[in-house]
Amino acid sequence: MLTPFFSPKGVAVIGASRESHKLGYGVVRNLVEHKFPGEVYPVHPAAAEILGRKCYPTIADVPDPVDLAIIIVAAPKVPAAVAACGQRGIKHVIVPSGGFREAGEKGAALEAELAATAEKYDVKVMGPNCIGSIDTHTPLNTTFVVGMPRAGDIGFVSQSGAMYAVVIDWAQGKGIGFSRIVSLGNQVGVTETETLAALGNDPNTRVITLYMEGVSNGEAFIRTAAKVARRKPIIAIKGGRGKGGAQAVASHTGSLAGSTEAYDAAFARAGVLRADSMQEMFNWARALAWQPLPKGNRVAVLTHAGGPGIMAVDAIEAAGLTLAPLTAETKSTLKKQLPPAASVHNPVDILAGPGVGTYALALEALLTDPTVDAVLVIMAPNDWFLPTSLADTVADIAARHRKPILTAIMGEISTAADDARAILSRRRIPNFTFPEEAPSALAAMWHRKQWLDAVESTPFTLQQVDRAAAQTALDAGDFTDALAAYGIALPPSEFAATPANAIRLAETMGYPVALKLVSADITHKSDVGGVVLNLSDGEAVARAFGQIMDAARAANASAKLDGVLVQKMLTGGQELIIGARRDPQFGALVLVGTGGVEVELVRDVATAIAPLSPAQAERLLDETIAGKRLHGWRNISPADRTAVIDALVRLSHLAADFPQIAEVEINPFYALPMGGFAVDVRGVVRQA
Amino acid sequence: MLTPFFSPKGVAVIGASRESHKLGYGVVRNLVEHKFPGEVYPVHPAAAEILGRKCYPTIADVPDPVDLAIIIVAAPKVPAAVAACGQRGIKHVIVPSGGFREAGEKGAALEAELAATAEKYDVKVMGPNCIGSIDTHTPLNTTFVVGMPRAGDIGFVSQSGAMYAVVIDWAQGKGIGFSRIVSLGNQVGVTETETLAALGNDPNTRVITLYMEGVSNGEAFIRTAAKVARRKPIIAIKGGRGKGGAQAVASHTGSLAGSTEAYDAAFARAGVLRADSMQEMFNWARALAWQPLPKGNRVAVLTHAGGPGIMAVDAIEAAGLTLAPLTAETKSTLKKQLPPAASVHNPVDILAGPGVGTYALALEALLTDPTVDAVLVIMAPNDWFLPTSLADTVADIAARHRKPILTAIMGEISTAADDARAILSRRRIPNFTFPEEAPSALAAMWHRKQWLDAVESTPFTLQQVDRAAAQTALDAGDFTDALAAYGIALPPSEFAATPANAIRLAETMGYPVALKLVSADITHKSDVGGVVLNLSDGEAVARAFGQIMDAARAANASAKLDGVLVQKMLTGGQELIIGARRDPQFGALVLVGTGGVEVELVRDVATAIAPLSPAQAERLLDETIAGKRLHGWRNISPADRTAVIDALVRLSHLAADFPQIAEVEINPFYALPMGGFAVDVRGVVRQA
Repeated sequence: MLTPFFSPKGVAVIGASRESHKLGYGVVRNLVEHKFPGEVYPVHPAAAEILGRKCYPTIADVPDPVDLAIIIVAAPKVPAAVAACGQRGIKHVIVPSGGFREAGEKGAALEAELAATAEKYDVKVMGPNCIGSIDTHTPLNTTFVVGMPRAGDIGFVSQSGAMYAVVIDWAQGKGIGFSRIVSLGNQVGVTETETLAALGNDPNTRVITLYMEGVSNGEAFIRTAAKVARRKPIIAIKGGRGKGGAQAVASHTGSLAGSTEAYDAAFARAGVLRADSMQEMFNWARALAWQPLPKGNRVAVLTHAGGPGIMAVDAIEAAGLTLAPLTAETKSTLKKQLPPAASVHNPVDILAGPGVGTYALALEALLTDPTVDAVLVIMAPNDWFLPTSLADTVADIAARHRKPILTAIMGEISTAADDARAILSRRRIPNFTFPEEAPSALAAMWHRKQWLDAVESTPFTLQQVDRAAAQTALDAGDFTDALAAYGIALPPSEFAATPANAIRLAETMGYPVALKLVSADITHKSDVGGVVLNLSDGEAVARAFGQIMDAARAANASAKLDGVLVQKMLTGGQELIIGARRDPQFGALVLVGTGGVEVELVRDVATAIAPLSPAQAERLLDETIAGKRLHGWRNISPADRTAVIDALVRLSHLAADFPQIAEVEINPFYALPMGGFAVDVRGVVRQA
Repeated sequence: MLTPFFSPKGVAVIGASRESHKLGYGVVRNLVEHKFPGEVYPVHPAAAEILGRKCYPTIADVPDPVDLAIIIVAAPKVPAAVAACGQRGIKHVIVPSGGFREAGEKGAALEAELAATAEKYDVKVMGPNCIGSIDTHTPLNTTFVVGMPRAGDIGFVSQSGAMYAVVIDWAQGKGIGFSRIVSLGNQVGVTETETLAALGNDPNTRVITLYMEGVSNGEAFIRTAAKVARRKPIIAIKGGRGKGGAQAVASHTGSLAGSTEAYDAAFARAGVLRADSMQEMFNWARALAWQPLPKGNRVAVLTHAGGPGIMAVDAIEAAGLTLAPLTAETKSTLKKQLPPAASVHNPVDILAGPGVGTYALALEALLTDPTVDAVLVIMAPNDWFLPTSLADTVADIAARHRKPILTAIMGEISTAADDARAILSRRRIPNFTFPEEAPSALAAMWHRKQWLDAVESTPFTLQQVDRAAAQTALDAGDFTDALAAYGIALPPSEFAATPANAIRLAETMGYPVALKLVSADITHKSDVGGVVLNLSDGEAVARAFGQIMDAARAANASAKLDGVLVQKMLTGGQELIIGARRDPQFGALVLVGTGGVEVELVRDVATAIAPLSPAQAERLLDETIAGKRLHGWRNISPADRTAVIDALVRLSHLAADFPQIAEVEINPFYALPMGGFAVDVRGVVRQA
């Protein structure tokens, strides 16, 4: 549907100019100079031609074929121009002009008018306040920015015009090639999600990079990104993570799972790799575009210089990868090939002296080793052999295998090092300025591999759920009953109308017990003294029963007092928090971690997009210390992980199924050696 | 003392060669080509001259003045050459030759011979297996590596020859200037610590960078580095942090405070800033060498482009800095200067359109603002104004103030951007490729400022310590008594010879209590059932007394059983761990954090070099969640932080005072609302 933004048949430029300092000239220049193969129609009231292309006085005069217009006139004139395009049958327009929402109230009104006009005439608008689109394979450059990026296989989508300019400039300087580049501006029409889908379908784009500041529709973004990510990698920078603008929250979950965590959770669910800097994003992009994914996280380092090898090893461990152990066979092969003092352990150091042939033998041995999932080849500046020779050799040996190879051929002053890097680029081997930069790219590849492996083909369906009962409970604001309806276990408790009954129940359950007032007329029971905990014998139960009734009567003399709930107090288990909240962007989020009163101090929680399958729930739990503790630790007994995972899955479905749940939180969820119970539950239903 | 390595009067080259591919030629070439102003004496058995410098057949023939020799002959000939230098009166030699310890057993023997010869003839050896030294101000280049770095004010010391080559090459490519560069090789003579001291005394060196893989003497390193760091910044990369080679440990402290933590603690104590990559090290170095330190951590961002400004803000927060709030006055000034739609909040965005003059006004306003400690100025590639104009403007406004200014003037393809960066370099304003790289440099500056502020002029002296008693206790392996001798409180306990006595004592103390066997003949009391906890009445005490005696007799029928210790069980407090261990490199290390059985699961500990002053102990405690919890949290009562700090100080002194303590650990240290007690204590005394 976005095709005309990338490969139109003809492009009209409304606001084309003959004056070379004007943006309306720049757009025509870029179309013409960068060899757009279709028709270019400058629209100009007076000029006969601009840059050799015939001008037309109005858009209505432009002949066929024309399916894209670039409107670069003053903001107040843009809506009329969009209408004229619509009337001419042009359904796709790019509006680079600024002066809309970003310029204050008047601009916002103008933007609303633009949106209404676009809708009325069924015109898809890219922008306003954008830079436009580039497709290096068409080729098409709809922007006014000087220069054209090299053709390549990286797609880039930006919600910031300046980042777009930075990337175009930087990539040209670094010789990085792009397939398509898009600047989205104010997103009146074309959104980041639609563009993602379009790049997903573009055969020239092998990896998609994204600079985002917000999302048009979080749930659609996750769906689309997850679909695209199955076919090609997506790397995103999310700009604006600050703590500023934190909303008022009613629970731990609200404060622990904020907007940053929501983006992280959305990216994790959709298989989007999150980068922290431009450098990192394009380092990862090259590696993902050019090399196969590793089957595991075991990396071999091949170097002729100790220090840079050590830097690489430190970065490998910091990135959560491990050093490949190497088989005895590999070590024995290396022993024969390398000088006696060389290290045949990983990192493999062939030492100064041996040259490119030795690299070839050692690299072949490492790539053949079944314990090696990826290799990083390092070369420090030296006078023994040419970096170009090593580049040729590495590329050749790499082609014999299907494992990822990354290089750090260093050298800033020798042209041979530049040449070597050009060889590597051509042979699709990503090179890094310093060896310590490579492991983060390998880690991104490994994360993608894990995500792809974990994608579940059959969606999980939750059993034993009474949706109608949950609906009724939530309508009454009763989260305890809602949890019960979703099959989450609550602590055993029974009703007693008299002290004698309460004692009998307590003795059946076993002490200690708690008593809780039952009365439809009193809502905040603990506030009025209607809850007494930790009763360890019959005498205490009887006394507590009396206290509760006295307190209740004191609070509300006319209340009908039914009796008490007798609840077994749980001991010998572990406390977790399981919570969910509705994020305004991404819908239901769920979290799990160490529970108790210290939740926000300890912050041992992991967050995901709801709902979860049991496998997803287990992976989430495993990200926390709480998840490890459930296995048992020193004299802490193991507790029932399955019960925790089940409750987490069920709460995630409850939150996903009922959008009216603003927040819900079980803290503690009490995990016993067998089973577990939602001891304290609270929640907030959003007022419709 | 190392002066001849940097500014000798005359340099002899033993192993000088006429053949241009040999290293012995390269050394002479570098001395001559890079214009060493003193005498150069090639030593060659046959040649009359090399590169126009007269040759001498042996070192004995070399005339005065000569105070440095470079020995570049095969390893087996090196010791004799060193002897000859000593006999000739040359007390400083550089040995680039390899084939020593790094080459296996035979090499190691040769290295021992070299060391012995050097000692015998009182010759200071740099190397072997090193690259040598460079002083760009002398100028002197003793290496064979092609090229000479630009003169500048950064010193660089490397324990890896390859890293040295990488840095020289890279710095030349980037135009980074150095004062002195040293490659230390196998460190038979000159150590990293001596070199650090030499660079500390060099007036041309404003900041010292260090690539380390090990330390020759940890305690001397800390002393020297701390002294140097008061005058100039030191930035270090520690290569080799891997978990490999972990030693067997007897306590939590051993496993939580390993070699990596020891280096971190040593660097923190000495004020050495630890970098993780070459890029980071030299980014920090430029900022520290060129700009004043910030007075606080509040940063203002000035940009004309939203996206890059947002990236900067995210990086500022990630680096532990904060956005300057800006005063109302500043905002009102900016309001008048900037376009209506511009942001006068931080990040200040002047928007596209305004140019360099507007930058000048806004930068002046920000630097005048008392809430601003540092400013980051950002420029994206654009066609409105020249980057050189902005560079000139920023440099000029910066010179009016004493606050650090960093820039990210981006642009890879325009020569004007290169020119702008050259202007900034000349004016000593550090520029970064992307805005998100700058905050880590600002954070390094801020850490240095905090370290300098925290340096205590008067050393702390611990009072109320009985060293002799501690010595006696440690000789007996009794850590409890050793702690008591150092004034650390132990839980109240008293001796009872009979059950009746035990009950009386328990009733005085208040229940619950614990009983512990007292018998000199039985060492592992809890193993034989000699400890019973949680006794809540007299009957239980009497029963436990009997049980303990029975168990003791069963374990050792002939043991003399004196009675029991009655100890009050503590409740209502918080459990911490306070531990210390002796690190083979850095001496006594101390740690504090969350105690209990989960110590290694939770890993909430902070480590420092012992001993600590109370202020240092408090800062260390504040790095942990345990330290925050002591302030109280929700329904957890506050506990006595002063008591924890006091115990931490005292344990740190005990560990520092007695090198025979291999490990000592209090877990838990039980902090009560008032006071605190070392409940469980254990330790290991190193066998002499």
